Amino acid sequence: MRLRRIPGTKEALTRYPDLVVFEPVRYYGCWKTYFGQEHPIYLELGMGKGKFISTMAGENPQINFIGMEFREEMVYKAIGKAGESRSNMRFLWAEADDVEEYFAPGEIQRIYLNFSDPWPKKRHGKRRLTHQKFLKKYKHILFPGGEIHFKTDNQELFEFSLNEFAGEGFFLKNITFDLHRSQYPGNITTEYEERYRQERPIYRCEAALIDHSQI
Amino acid sequence: MRLRRIPGTKEALTRYPDLVVFEPVRYYGCWKTYFGQEHPIYLELGMGKGKFISTMAGENPQINFIGMEFREEMVYKAIGKAGESRSNMRFLWAEADDVEEYFAPGEIQRIYLNFSDPWPKKRHGKRRLTHQKFLKKYKHILFPGGEIHFKTDNQELFEFSLNEFAGEGFFLKNITFDLHRSQYPGNITTEYEERYRQERPIYRCEAALIDHSQI
Ligand SMILES: C[S@@+](CC[C@H](N)C(=O)[O-])C[C@H]1O[C@@H](n2cnc3c(N)ncnc32)[C@H](O)[C@@H]1O
Ligand SMILES: C[S@@+](CC[C@H](N)C(=O)[O-])C[C@H]1O[C@@H](n2cnc3c(N)ncnc32)[C@H](O)[C@@H]1O
Repeated sequence: MRLRRIPGTKEALTRYPDLVVFEPVRYYGCWKTYFGQEHPIYLELGMGKGKFISTMAGENPQINFIGMEFREEMVYKAIGKAGESRSNMRFLWAEADDVEEYFAPGEIQRIYLNFSDPWPKKRHGKRRLTHQKFLKKYKHILFPGGEIHFKTDNQELFEFSLNEFAGEGFFLKNITFDLHRSQYPGNITTEYEERYRQERPIYRCEAALIDHSQI
Repeated sequence: MRLRRIPGTKEALTRYPDLVVFEPVRYYGCWKTYFGQEHPIYLELGMGKGKFISTMAGENPQINFIGMEFREEMVYKAIGKAGESRSNMRFLWAEADDVEEYFAPGEIQRIYLNFSDPWPKKRHGKRRLTHQKFLKKYKHILFPGGEIHFKTDNQELFEFSLNEFAGEGFFLKNITFDLHRSQYPGNITTEYEERYRQERPIYRCEAALIDHSQI
């Protein structure tokens, strides 16, 4: 998979240097310096139109948020949704598969995966953002004790993901099979979630990297 | 909760000393000596009529199996199902709540919970065999790295149990939302499972006690 390029995109996105980071490789290992403080960094992969990350960044000024998305039209929409720039939020027009090029080991405290594409066919399993291929990369960039927070409306993807997390040694917790029935406190919805929450249950879990120094 | 006593029961059960252990407290800490070899001990709580444990014991001579059940009529039926005594299987007419009185710390390698009563009402939550109250007891008798294998057809109980396991520090793995569709290899069914497997999905998971010496 590669970035979807529409002619003129790059130029359009460069008009928002306070929101969109070009050449993220330049900040490898020094994102905290880039943000100008030591706050933890939370990364959303496949942020879509950005409702979730914009709301989160607004509510949590003590956290720095980075949203990654490989469809440029989504990045545009996220810019629109953001309204104006925020000192604690940036977007990357980039491919989740490349996270290790952008982030140094331990640089990310938390990863959000919201309604990742389910890729239901078995032969497409490797494209799922919770496939062990991806989890191994996430483990490299996550801080010890860091977490992945995952939401989906797809039961098969949820079941698959729980086992991929377990297989990579993540500790599973706060599992719900019906997020909106369970009234998980402080849930911030995404665009996709708002559209489908009435029709079917939303599954959610947290997968924590065990911090071996704490045992 | 207490044992359900029907007059004459004790006398009837004592007729099967090769299958039913009376006064299990006597073997506290020395079950391996009682069985006469060092094989690991697997414990089933709420074994019902005993199809699962009898089949398991027949297929796994290198493991010692103990089935606990607090309804005496079920223990009777399990005796009937067993047919004859087996050197690696015993039944206890006893209450799961009392496991710590019967087993010493680390004496049990694995616990099976098959179709435990769901106790759907919130105020009965403490009666669920996967309530943290029980899990704390199981942790005491489980060997480091020991596991609990849990099956249920009740989604609410499954969700509840996953979180109870996680809350007590168990590592979750091999989670399935539809055991018979997923064709888990070597699944041994229970009486209850045979009755309902066509009607609704069977959930299953394994919860492992982390062996801190292995980290
Ligand atoms: C189903 S949408 C969900 C969007 C948003 N998270 C929501 O819940 O509304 C999945 C998004 O992930 C993006 N995506 C899928 N694979 C990606 C990848 N490998 N790298 C970056 N973005 C990806 C897609 O372009 C799409 O916007
Ligand atoms: C729904 S039945 C399932 C029986 C069997 N495992 C099966 O799958 O066919 C639950 C069983 O657990 C037993 N049970 C429930 N609570 C128990 C407890 N606290 N101690 C021992 N047995 C218990 C009940 O008597 C009943 O036989």
